[in-house]
Amino acid sequence: MTDDKDLLCINTIRTLAMDAVQKANSGHPGTPMGLAPVAYTLWQDFLRFDPAEPTWPNRDRFVLSVGHASMLLYSLLHLTRTRQVKSNFRDAGPAAITLDDIKNFRQLNSPCAGHPEFHMASGIECTTGPLGQGVGMSVGMAIAERWLATRYNKPGATLIDYDVYALCGDGDMMEGISSEAASLAGHLRLSNLCWIYDSNRISIEGSTDLAFSEDVGARFLAYGWNVLRVRDANDTAAVKLALQSFKREQSRPTFILVESHIGYGAPHKQDTKEAHGEPLGADEIKGAKRAYGWPEDAQFLVPDGVYEHFAAGIGARGAASSSAWKQTYARYAETNADLAREFDTMLAQGLPAGWEEALAPVPADAKGAATRDSSGKTLNALAERIPYLLGGAADLAPSTKTALKGKGDGSFEATNYAGRNFHFGVREHAMGAIVNGMSLSGLRAFGSGFLIFSDYMRAAIRLSAIQETPSVWVFTHDSIGVGEDGPTHQPIEQLASLRAIPGLHTIRPCDANEVEEAWRVALSSKYHPTCLILSRQPLPTLDRAKFAPAAGLARGAYVLADPADGRAPEVILMATGSEVPLCVEAWETLSAEGVAARIVSMPCWDLFEQQDEAYRRSVLPDAVTARVAVEQAATLGWDRYAGLHGTIIGMHTFGASAPMKSLLTKFGFTGEKVLEAARAQLARQKTMHRAAE
Amino acid sequence: MTDDKDLLCINTIRTLAMDAVQKANSGHPGTPMGLAPVAYTLWQDFLRFDPAEPTWPNRDRFVLSVGHASMLLYSLLHLTRTRQVKSNFRDAGPAAITLDDIKNFRQLNSPCAGHPEFHMASGIECTTGPLGQGVGMSVGMAIAERWLATRYNKPGATLIDYDVYALCGDGDMMEGISSEAASLAGHLRLSNLCWIYDSNRISIEGSTDLAFSEDVGARFLAYGWNVLRVRDANDTAAVKLALQSFKREQSRPTFILVESHIGYGAPHKQDTKEAHGEPLGADEIKGAKRAYGWPEDAQFLVPDGVYEHFAAGIGARGAASSSAWKQTYARYAETNADLAREFDTMLAQGLPAGWEEALAPVPADAKGAATRDSSGKTLNALAERIPYLLGGAADLAPSTKTALKGKGDGSFEATNYAGRNFHFGVREHAMGAIVNGMSLSGLRAFGSGFLIFSDYMRAAIRLSAIQETPSVWVFTHDSIGVGEDGPTHQPIEQLASLRAIPGLHTIRPCDANEVEEAWRVALSSKYHPTCLILSRQPLPTLDRAKFAPAAGLARGAYVLADPADGRAPEVILMATGSEVPLCVEAWETLSAEGVAARIVSMPCWDLFEQQDEAYRRSVLPDAVTARVAVEQAATLGWDRYAGLHGTIIGMHTFGASAPMKSLLTKFGFTGEKVLEAARAQLARQKTMHRAAE
Repeated sequence: MTDDKDLLCINTIRTLAMDAVQKANSGHPGTPMGLAPVAYTLWQDFLRFDPAEPTWPNRDRFVLSVGHASMLLYSLLHLTRTRQVKSNFRDAGPAAITLDDIKNFRQLNSPCAGHPEFHMASGIECTTGPLGQGVGMSVGMAIAERWLATRYNKPGATLIDYDVYALCGDGDMMEGISSEAASLAGHLRLSNLCWIYDSNRISIEGSTDLAFSEDVGARFLAYGWNVLRVRDANDTAAVKLALQSFKREQSRPTFILVESHIGYGAPHKQDTKEAHGEPLGADEIKGAKRAYGWPEDAQFLVPDGVYEHFAAGIGARGAASSSAWKQTYARYAETNADLAREFDTMLAQGLPAGWEEALAPVPADAKGAATRDSSGKTLNALAERIPYLLGGAADLAPSTKTALKGKGDGSFEATNYAGRNFHFGVREHAMGAIVNGMSLSGLRAFGSGFLIFSDYMRAAIRLSAIQETPSVWVFTHDSIGVGEDGPTHQPIEQLASLRAIPGLHTIRPCDANEVEEAWRVALSSKYHPTCLILSRQPLPTLDRAKFAPAAGLARGAYVLADPADGRAPEVILMATGSEVPLCVEAWETLSAEGVAARIVSMPCWDLFEQQDEAYRRSVLPDAVTARVAVEQAATLGWDRYAGLHGTIIGMHTFGASAPMKSLLTKFGFTGEKVLEAARAQLARQKTMHRAAE
Repeated sequence: MTDDKDLLCINTIRTLAMDAVQKANSGHPGTPMGLAPVAYTLWQDFLRFDPAEPTWPNRDRFVLSVGHASMLLYSLLHLTRTRQVKSNFRDAGPAAITLDDIKNFRQLNSPCAGHPEFHMASGIECTTGPLGQGVGMSVGMAIAERWLATRYNKPGATLIDYDVYALCGDGDMMEGISSEAASLAGHLRLSNLCWIYDSNRISIEGSTDLAFSEDVGARFLAYGWNVLRVRDANDTAAVKLALQSFKREQSRPTFILVESHIGYGAPHKQDTKEAHGEPLGADEIKGAKRAYGWPEDAQFLVPDGVYEHFAAGIGARGAASSSAWKQTYARYAETNADLAREFDTMLAQGLPAGWEEALAPVPADAKGAATRDSSGKTLNALAERIPYLLGGAADLAPSTKTALKGKGDGSFEATNYAGRNFHFGVREHAMGAIVNGMSLSGLRAFGSGFLIFSDYMRAAIRLSAIQETPSVWVFTHDSIGVGEDGPTHQPIEQLASLRAIPGLHTIRPCDANEVEEAWRVALSSKYHPTCLILSRQPLPTLDRAKFAPAAGLARGAYVLADPADGRAPEVILMATGSEVPLCVEAWETLSAEGVAARIVSMPCWDLFEQQDEAYRRSVLPDAVTARVAVEQAATLGWDRYAGLHGTIIGMHTFGASAPMKSLLTKFGFTGEKVLEAARAQLARQKTMHRAAE
C-alpha cells in the first residue's frame, strides 16, 4: 500500500463506499469513488470542523447536495472520528458513525441511511437527496452567516465567520431550483459560499450528452460568480489552488467545476452509468482495489495511520479553531452579555423572554381585516421582540403583508447584511430551500407567497418537515376568494396537499385572534414547520366574549359556539378560515329559531389529531351525525369529520375569473347555503332516528 | 390622432388594456402598454396566423407566458377579428373576442378571464399565468413541430413548418422551470423557437435590482441560444430586425431581450411597480391617452382603420398561408392517404383503429411483475400501434421503464427529430410543461419519474388538468416499497395530493391487467390528464378467472372478490396497488375460516366518484361497516370509504431507509395485519349490532 498518507485516506474513503454499497446490495458507489480526492482535500486542509465538537457555532458548513453519495460523508465522519452531540456545541458523546454503522449502511436504524438524514448523526448538516435542495439550503446557510456575523460580531470579537461548501453534481445543475438559488447568491454577493460541481458527465440515462450540453461555467459567470475549473479530480494540488482562490475571493460566491470520473478505478464500470446507482459487484470491486494498490480481499479496511492522519489534519486544526473560539466567546460574553444571551437562546431554538407579549387580543370588529393583514401586524409585533425572526417573499411582500417595518428592518442586500426583509425574487422553490437553510442555522425564518405557488416549492416544504426544522411558510390568497385572477391563481387542492405532509402544521385561521394563536403555535414549535393559510379578503374579528377564546386553536379544533341555553347540540357546523363566518351566520339564524347548533372552528387538523380521543369526541360527539363542513377547497379529508352522512360544501372543480362575490354565489359559499345544508342534515338525522326507534 | 397606422394600432391595444383593467377594477395594465409595439410587430408582420381559421395546423404558435398581460392577447384577438372555432381548422364561428367581452374583462363567463384560459377563446394556445409555465410549454410546442415535420412532411409537400413564439418577463426568467426548459431547448437546437423577453426591470416588490441582477443574455448564450437585444420596445424597426434574425437562424433557439417601459405613457406610473397589477386610475389613464395623442375621454375606442389595417396585414397574410396550406394538404392526401388519415386522427385527438388490440390479457402469475415493468410492456405494445404516442423521463427511463424499444424509436435529439424517446434531463418541472406543450400540439405525450418527484412538477400537472389536456404522467417507485433510498425518496403524501387535483385521474393499479386497463383509460381520455402510480417491486398477477376482470378499473373501484358461496359480505377489505395482494392474502384466510369477506380494488377514486350512487353503494354497501382500507401512503381521504369506524392501515410518518421487507414489517403492511384488522372490525360490528338490537 502507498506511503502517501493522503492517497491512503482517499482510497479508504473509496473502498468503504464500495464495500458498504456492496454489502447493502444497494446504493451509489460511483460518486464517492470519483469525488473522494476533492472531499478529502476540502476536509483535511480547508474545512473548519472540529470532530470533537461537530456542532460548534462557527464551524464551516459542508452540504452534500449529491445526497446519493452519502457514503462519502459517512466515511469522512467515521474517519475523522466525529462525535455524536446532543445539543449545540456541548455534550460530545460517542462516535457519530462507527464502522459497524457503515457495515449497516441502508439498514433499519443505522445512522447511515440511503441519503444523509439530518438528526441521524452529528456532522450531517441537512437532509439531502432530492436534487437541488442541498445547494439551495447552502445559500440559506451562507445568508444566515452574513446576517449573524453582522448582528453578533463586535470589534475584536468575531463570533461568526464561517464558510459554506456544497458538493453538487450534474443533477443539481439541471434542476431549476439550483438556477434560482445561484442567481440569488450571485446577486447577494455571498463570498462565503463555495459550490463544488462534480462534472462526471454521467447521469442515470447515460452520458450527459443526451440532455445537458450547456456551458455551466458560463452560466455561473452570468450569475456573477467566481468560476474556477479543475481538470482532474485526482489532482489534489489543483483542488487546493481552487479552494485557496475561494478563500481569497471577497465579493462573489465561488463555483469550482471539477472534472471527475464516476466509479474511478473500477476496471469496466468507470465512466459508465452502471457505476452510479447500483453495487459494483465483487469482481469490479476487486479490480478497483487492485488499481488502488489495495488488498483486494480486504473489506471495510481502515489501514493503519488513516485515523491518525485525519486527526493530525482536520482534527488538530478544528480543535484549535473551536478552542480559540471558546475563548473569544468568553471574552465576548463579558462585554456583550445581552447579545451573548440572545445568541445562546437562538442557538437553542429558544425565543427571548416575553416574546408572547406581542400577542395582544384583538377586539371584535364586524368589518374585520384580511387574515393576511392581521398576520402582517402580528408578525411585526413579534419581530420587534425576536431579533432573529426574519424572512421575506417570492416577490409578493406587498401582497403577503410580510414586510418588517421596524427601525433598521431594511432589505437584506449585498450592501446591507443586517436587513431582515428578504427579496427572494420570483423564485419560490429556492426560497423554500433557502429558508430551510436559514432555519438550520438558528434563525427563525419565514418565506411567503400566494398559496397557489406552494406548488412550486412542495419539495422544499416537505424537506422542512422531514428535517423537523421550524420554517414558517406564510401563504396568502388562500381560495377562490382571490377573485378575478382566475383558476390558475385560485388554490383548490393545495390545502389538502399540505395537510397530507407528515409533521407539517397547516393552519387556516378564521380571524385576527386565531392569526395570533397561529403565530404562537408556529414560533413555539421547535421541530415542526408551519404553513399559515391566510385570506386576501377581510374577515370579521369575532367577539370572543360571545364566542370561545381563540386559544382553542392550539388544540387544532375547538367549539367556537354552542347553544346559549346549555342544550346539547343537534347539529354541528364546522369550517376553517373564511368559511367560519358563514357558519356563524347560519348559527345565528338557527339559534334564533331555537335549533341547538354548534360551531367548530378547525384551523389545524394535524393538531386536532394529536389530541386525545376524549377531547376529539367532546368536540365532535358521535351522537350528532347532522354535520355540515364548509371550506373553499377540495373536500378531500373532510369526510373524517363530517361523517359518511354529513354535508361537505367545498370545491369540486377549478375556480373561475370573476369578482369574489360572484364566485361565492356561483360555488355556493354563502351563509344561506350553510343554513340550508344544516336544515337538511337535521331532517336526515331525524328520519334516521325515527327509523332506528 | 396619428396618421401612422401602425402606431394607431399599437395605441389601440394599449388603451383597450387600460380601459378594460379600469372597468374591471382589477388586472395588469402595465405590461400590455409596454409591450404593445413588440406584440403588434410580431403579429402584424411575422406571425403566421389566420384569424378566420385560428386553429389550422400549420399556424405559428403564440404563447403569452406573461399571462397576467392577458389584455394584450385579447386586444390582438379582437382587433384581428379572430373567429371562434369549435374543432381543428374547421367550423369558423362568431368572433372569438368581441368588444363587449373586453368590456367584461375578468367577469363571470367572459372569455376575457384574468389570465388566458385555453378553451375560452380560439387563438389562446394554452393557459398561462403561473410564471414559467408558458415558456416551458413553448418548448414542448417547438419539439412537437420538429417531430411532426419529420414524420409528416414529404418532398414537395410541407405540412408542418411553424414557429413558436413566447412573450416572457422578469418573473419567467427568475423561475427555475424556465432555466430548465431553456437549457433543454438549447441542447435540442430548436431553431423554430423564439422567446421575447420583456425586460422592464420592475417586479411586484419594486425594481428588479432588489433581487435580480444576473446577466440574462449571457445566461442564454451559455445555454446555446442566439441572443439578441432591442434597446427600446417602441423601436419597431429594431424589433423587426431581431425577428428577421430569428427567421434566418437555423441551428439555435432565439432569445430577444427587449428593454421596455412598464405602463408606457402613464405620466406618473410608467416604470413603477404601481403600473404592474392594479388599475391605473382615471387620471393616469387620461394622462397616458394624452401622451398617445388619444381622445382622453374615449373609452374602448377602436379608431377607424384599425380593423382594416390588421386585416390587410396579418389577416391577408394568414389567409394566403392557410389557403396555400389547404392545397398542399389536398395534394398530400392524394399521395399519402394513410399518413393524411393518421394526421387527421391525431389532430382530432383520436387514436388509430385497432389500438386496443395492444391490450392482451396477462395470465395469472404468482411471482408477477412490478407494475412499472408491466407498464413498460403495455406502453411499448401501444406505441407500436400509435405512432404519435411518445415521451420520456427526467433522467430515469431505465427505472421508470418508459423507454420505447420499437424499430426506429430512437432518442429525440438535435440530430434525430424522429426519435420518440425524450431525455428531459433532471428537469421534472420543465418536463411537465414540455409534455403539456406536446399534448397541446396533438401528440399523445407522457412524462415519467419517481412519484416523489411529482412534487417538483406539481404546477405543470395542475395545468394539464386546468387545460384539460390528456398528458400522461407515469410515476413509479410509488411507496415505502422503494426501500433503501429512504424518506426523501419514499412518497407518503403524494397520492393524496394528486387525488385532490380536480379532473386528474390518479390510477394506482394492482397488477399487470389493471396496468393495461389504466393505460386504456389514460389514452381514451381526451380531456383528462392521467397519473399512473406504479410499483418498483414485483406484484403477483391475479388469476382473473378467480377474481373479477380488471376491466372494472374503468369504474374506479370494483368488487375484486366476494364470498364464494354467494353470501353477502360481512367485512370489506379495500386497497390499491401493492396493497391489494395483502387483502387477497387476508381474504383467503377469512374465506377458509368461513367469514364472508369482500375485496374492493380501488385504483382510481376519481373515476369511482363519477359513478352513480347505485353502483357506488353496490361496491361499498352501507350495511357493512366492518371495513379495512390499506395503502402505503398518507391516509387522508380514506375515511370516505372506510367510514368513521373502519380501520385504515396507512402511513402517519415519513418512511425510513432499509430493505423493503423490514419496512413493510415496521410499518405494518402485511397480510397478517390486514387479517387482524378485519377480525377486529368484525368484532366491533357485531358489538354494535348487538347494542342496536
